[in-house]
Amino acid sequence: MTEPRTIRVHPRDNVALVLDPSAPTHKVALVDIPPHGPIVRYGEVIGTAARSIAAGEWVGEDAVELPEAPALDNLDLATATPAALPPLEGYSFEGFRNADGTAGTKNILGITTTVQCVAPTVEFAVNRIKSEILPRFAKVDDVIAITHPYGCGVAIDAPGAQVPIRTIRNLSLNPNLGGASMAVSLGCEKLQPSRLFPIVIEQPHVIRLQDEEYRGFGDMVSAIMTVAEKRLSELNARRRVACPASDLVVGVQCGGSDAFSGVTANPAVGYAADLLVRAGAAVMFSEVTEVRDAVHLLTPRAVNQDVARALIREMAWYDAYLARGQADRSANPTPGNKRGGLANIVEKALGSVAKAGSSPLMAVSSPGERVKAKGLVFAATPASDFICGTLQLAAGMNLHVFTTGEGTPYGLAMAPVIKVSSRTALAQRWHDLIDLDAGRIATGTATIEDIGWELFRLILDVASGRKKTCADRWGLHNDLALFNPGPVT
Amino acid sequence: MTEPRTIRVHPRDNVALVLDPSAPTHKVALVDIPPHGPIVRYGEVIGTAARSIAAGEWVGEDAVELPEAPALDNLDLATATPAALPPLEGYSFEGFRNADGTAGTKNILGITTTVQCVAPTVEFAVNRIKSEILPRFAKVDDVIAITHPYGCGVAIDAPGAQVPIRTIRNLSLNPNLGGASMAVSLGCEKLQPSRLFPIVIEQPHVIRLQDEEYRGFGDMVSAIMTVAEKRLSELNARRRVACPASDLVVGVQCGGSDAFSGVTANPAVGYAADLLVRAGAAVMFSEVTEVRDAVHLLTPRAVNQDVARALIREMAWYDAYLARGQADRSANPTPGNKRGGLANIVEKALGSVAKAGSSPLMAVSSPGERVKAKGLVFAATPASDFICGTLQLAAGMNLHVFTTGEGTPYGLAMAPVIKVSSRTALAQRWHDLIDLDAGRIATGTATIEDIGWELFRLILDVASGRKKTCADRWGLHNDLALFNPGPVT
Repeated sequence: MTEPRTIRVHPRDNVALVLDPSAPTHKVALVDIPPHGPIVRYGEVIGTAARSIAAGEWVGEDAVELPEAPALDNLDLATATPAALPPLEGYSFEGFRNADGTAGTKNILGITTTVQCVAPTVEFAVNRIKSEILPRFAKVDDVIAITHPYGCGVAIDAPGAQVPIRTIRNLSLNPNLGGASMAVSLGCEKLQPSRLFPIVIEQPHVIRLQDEEYRGFGDMVSAIMTVAEKRLSELNARRRVACPASDLVVGVQCGGSDAFSGVTANPAVGYAADLLVRAGAAVMFSEVTEVRDAVHLLTPRAVNQDVARALIREMAWYDAYLARGQADRSANPTPGNKRGGLANIVEKALGSVAKAGSSPLMAVSSPGERVKAKGLVFAATPASDFICGTLQLAAGMNLHVFTTGEGTPYGLAMAPVIKVSSRTALAQRWHDLIDLDAGRIATGTATIEDIGWELFRLILDVASGRKKTCADRWGLHNDLALFNPGPVT
Repeated sequence: MTEPRTIRVHPRDNVALVLDPSAPTHKVALVDIPPHGPIVRYGEVIGTAARSIAAGEWVGEDAVELPEAPALDNLDLATATPAALPPLEGYSFEGFRNADGTAGTKNILGITTTVQCVAPTVEFAVNRIKSEILPRFAKVDDVIAITHPYGCGVAIDAPGAQVPIRTIRNLSLNPNLGGASMAVSLGCEKLQPSRLFPIVIEQPHVIRLQDEEYRGFGDMVSAIMTVAEKRLSELNARRRVACPASDLVVGVQCGGSDAFSGVTANPAVGYAADLLVRAGAAVMFSEVTEVRDAVHLLTPRAVNQDVARALIREMAWYDAYLARGQADRSANPTPGNKRGGLANIVEKALGSVAKAGSSPLMAVSSPGERVKAKGLVFAATPASDFICGTLQLAAGMNLHVFTTGEGTPYGLAMAPVIKVSSRTALAQRWHDLIDLDAGRIATGTATIEDIGWELFRLILDVASGRKKTCADRWGLHNDLALFNPGPVT
């Protein structure tokens, strides 16, 4: 019997991953570790030993004690800003140019809703539009109702209410929707269209169902269909044109992570992130609770002290938000993360931030804000897959990269989602759901650089409409999920 | 020119409603009211005069100062419990008898989901089931995916987490679903099926998408369809049988209320509620923020001091919940309520509780709990239409009555929703969305008793499948909306 292969990420590590799919857990001690001794992975302390651990012994969740989160008051600010990576010229994709300078990777008609009351009416109209009108407009990819449970029955003046409001507003401005288009309002809701769309931005065409002119449901649906047809004919006149790769706004996220995520899928995404940054694109990483324990590695990388402080501000805001709800960062990870060999949130976080690559941190945005910067950006969001995806769409994401170890059939209607698996077994079993297998890095048949370049090229193909993601082939699109830190009423 | 007709609800009132649809607001002073003088409607002080108001003058929102909410520490407990109303015998409906003793007004296959990750997969399968399998099972009304944004990315051990968890559990036990049936889980989520369904209740058939046996998306969909077909054939064997009206669990709610709601639609619903209670049924009213300012009228009506204390407990919990979010009850009402002539939450609450009729308050339940009691029950929920509807479904509601003044095209997939308008103009304009016009009470062409009986008979017809609601005719079904007082992560 041969020794199972192991992966040690960093020379300082005293634990390593075991490449044995039949093993119940995935980490083994490389040396004897005394009680309370540091357990080191990624060159960082992920916890202390709950008991004496012998060399060669499995290091399961119960052997690792969670350390304190890094203090936020004495972090290094922009002390080790990486040099800008060399530019990468000559890469482009075929996208839809928008009036505001952004570019879409899809050409979608989005119908914004101000309140959940109107959602079934809009969905009824969208179904009819898709079957009766859309077939005449072959250059339009889709028609989607931007529905959500916000808009009424909420404390709309409470602290935090600006988060869901700006999220809905910015979702409707996503580059893949070709600019603000049309919205459906009930009439009596708290989130009035004038509040959702301030005068300074392009006004969508608003249909208010309570207006006297609509005599019943038939009239409401007709009104929506009439405006939609006009808008569809405008969108249908657009054609894909060559856009520099710098027009990409790529959001990266992980979900259902395992112990391999941090050594295969996430570093490969990090490599692709660096390529995108070198090509001038914006790359967003997110998920506050999965960055919190690695914040001391990120503040030195900020381009300046203001950006570092903005990162700390977002961490502190979330610490306080969790404390108000009597929770803390230990509420992450999930049972599946643990089954996959992640002992705690520190280990998960260290693997998670590998998605961010190695370039300078150029900007930080708050949840639901539009991201204007290029380069690597931290867009603060909860780690919930759907809330994170929704907030990245609001930030202006036109393409999404999602890594997974345990596997999830995730998808979004508003932007293509490329799913990258951390293990080959998952990519093989979920052959029609996983777009790229980064597990080949663990088995030694590909390098991080190989998969990074493969992903970069796949991003350009998908952004150009030349390749379809698995989620888009099946039409698997998760509902939008708003982040509402305020109370409902 | 004739004087406009006015409605004074209570002999003590010093303001009255004006029946002039062209008026910008709807209340007029009957006498001179000095600054800080009480403004009385429904025989209760709805606020104090912000300035001197002359007899005959309009009383708009800005003329009324919001009073303090009734203190919770010295309320009368069960001091004026009404005598039980005389029984009403001989009323029944044709329903589906369930093994647990409940009865359904519909015969629906519900597919529970443990986490949002699986929602699009389940919806994909449901679409195929509806087009390929359901046509062979004519006695089944519908197949619905019980989808929601909970299950992962949440602080599942935080205080308040039991609310969304028991809500999902109890939704899957709704009488219209014929008992616990089937659930789809991802595998790695925080809300594991074993946590959602404790061993003490009937176990649904669970399909876990991450199980090794499913080799790709096609396998997953096939597995769901296979279990669904088996379940559909069981449901299809059921027939409607005569059920006493006491098997009804009717939830009442209002949304988009106006100044007429409290004198037409809500009192008529209250009259029907009394008829239902007399027939032995359960009638739930809800919406904590719309009951808070009328709590002093309700605690005396409790059947005993424990029930009165439970009502106070729910009010206090919500006061604290809003305070944590730096909001208060003034976050309700909406712009539309105000346009409709409701000055503040006190006036809205006094009109809202009219839906509860005049019988003793028999029980109080917390959000998401199953209601076991008969008679009038307060099922605590937020006032958000969709959260309230969802929580009433979880409480076991098999038919919903919804009153509206401004108009909303509201509907639920899991139970029929009868919509009652407060004004005839709305019922006429929304002729295909409003099921019953209570505005005839204001115009004098029907009494509260007339409309109450009409609604009671309509409830029996709808519960029997003899009549379809407007929402069901169009298939207008709002998404479920969970109440999650805990943080996301």
